[in-house]
Amino acid sequence: MTYCVAMLLDTGLVFLSDSRTSAGVDQINTFRKTIVFQKPDERVLVLQTAGNLAITQAVVSMLREKLDSPEHANLYGCANLFEAACCVGDALREVHRRDAASLREFGVEFNASLILGGQIRGEPPRLFSIYSAGNFIEATPDTTYFQIGESKYGKPIIDRVIRRSSSLNEAAKCALVSMDSTIRSNLSVGLPLDLVIVRRDQYTVARHVSIGDDDPYFRGIRARWSEALREAFAQLPDPDWLTTR
Amino acid sequence: MTYCVAMLLDTGLVFLSDSRTSAGVDQINTFRKTIVFQKPDERVLVLQTAGNLAITQAVVSMLREKLDSPEHANLYGCANLFEAACCVGDALREVHRRDAASLREFGVEFNASLILGGQIRGEPPRLFSIYSAGNFIEATPDTTYFQIGESKYGKPIIDRVIRRSSSLNEAAKCALVSMDSTIRSNLSVGLPLDLVIVRRDQYTVARHVSIGDDDPYFRGIRARWSEALREAFAQLPDPDWLTTR
Repeated sequence: MTYCVAMLLDTGLVFLSDSRTSAGVDQINTFRKTIVFQKPDERVLVLQTAGNLAITQAVVSMLREKLDSPEHANLYGCANLFEAACCVGDALREVHRRDAASLREFGVEFNASLILGGQIRGEPPRLFSIYSAGNFIEATPDTTYFQIGESKYGKPIIDRVIRRSSSLNEAAKCALVSMDSTIRSNLSVGLPLDLVIVRRDQYTVARHVSIGDDDPYFRGIRARWSEALREAFAQLPDPDWLTTR
Repeated sequence: MTYCVAMLLDTGLVFLSDSRTSAGVDQINTFRKTIVFQKPDERVLVLQTAGNLAITQAVVSMLREKLDSPEHANLYGCANLFEAACCVGDALREVHRRDAASLREFGVEFNASLILGGQIRGEPPRLFSIYSAGNFIEATPDTTYFQIGESKYGKPIIDRVIRRSSSLNEAAKCALVSMDSTIRSNLSVGLPLDLVIVRRDQYTVARHVSIGDDDPYFRGIRARWSEALREAFAQLPDPDWLTTR
């Protein structure tokens, strides 16, 4: 399983992904699920992947191979983020044409979902969620985030605290709290984490951090958040259903 | 969809369920998913249901019909909670024998899950989670709760705050916070809620409350919890990834 979340804010984008892949409980591996494509001062694109690893790796390889071939639409040449999302969707469809029938023979579903976000000079930062069929949706002003993979455990806290006006630091903090809730509830989501921060109008990654078990900030956040939740909970008034009511 | 949670504590049991059923977005109804069977001073059993409503209603009807027929194993006659869970599993299997083939013809999965908890004189309070196949598991000293239905959004808070030693009031409060997170994230989980509290060694329901939109305690909890979470989040230290680090 995987958990990836990407947030689109007034001041830029925040991406966070775990790195655990599992094919059964005795086949656990670490694979990075966040890939950055950038041409400094012109474009920065961040891709997150979930689903069948063979599929998503094939998509990423295909996208990389095309980067320097001007005859193909590619992530370095496309004019805007919409076209970049089309490139990703097309790569996914190419993998589908090659692999889906064989996978079906083995009873394996063609399952892959991706998030693509970033900024290309000439337009604001944009964020897309791309489905297995290669189609996609884009975040609108009412959408502050997309998730892929094991999304439910970590969703409530994002809904409660993140707005377009949140700062990049707040968003990074919220993504980490959301990831913490997910890791606690689903063993197949695991460290290290990849955190990527993109500042608006800088066309480069502002920060790309790999967060392991020993990261002092993440350890601190996890401990304090647990404590803060328990305290907040303790301060809620008890119901009086067992006494007067 | 449905969300039900039942907690087993040193001092008794707490059950909370929503009441929304939906067969598509334009077929929304209110059906209670918590059923109480009690013989005061001797036994109290609380059953929660999730899944296909026609199946779970058939199970409940069947259990009710048998209550007064001594020739059948039934919830009033069984010697202990394990046998009571067997009665529920058997009823589920009877419905399966009658309906599963017809459902399959219409592409409908035989989907039902139930929670049964309570206390019968002579043993401590016990809690069971019963699957579609009629088999079940029982809560052990390491298990403080079972959930059925849309369980993920509301799970993290329970994991963080509930222990066997929690009070019934704390557990009821936690169940409501857990339900709040679920209702905010899944439109097909909705009010009114059924809250049932059973005190250990009282063999009767201590409290059965129906909680609607206008319930002042639940409204208060929802508002304060949102606020407390946002405050706790704001008090977490910001990462310094965008500055010095």
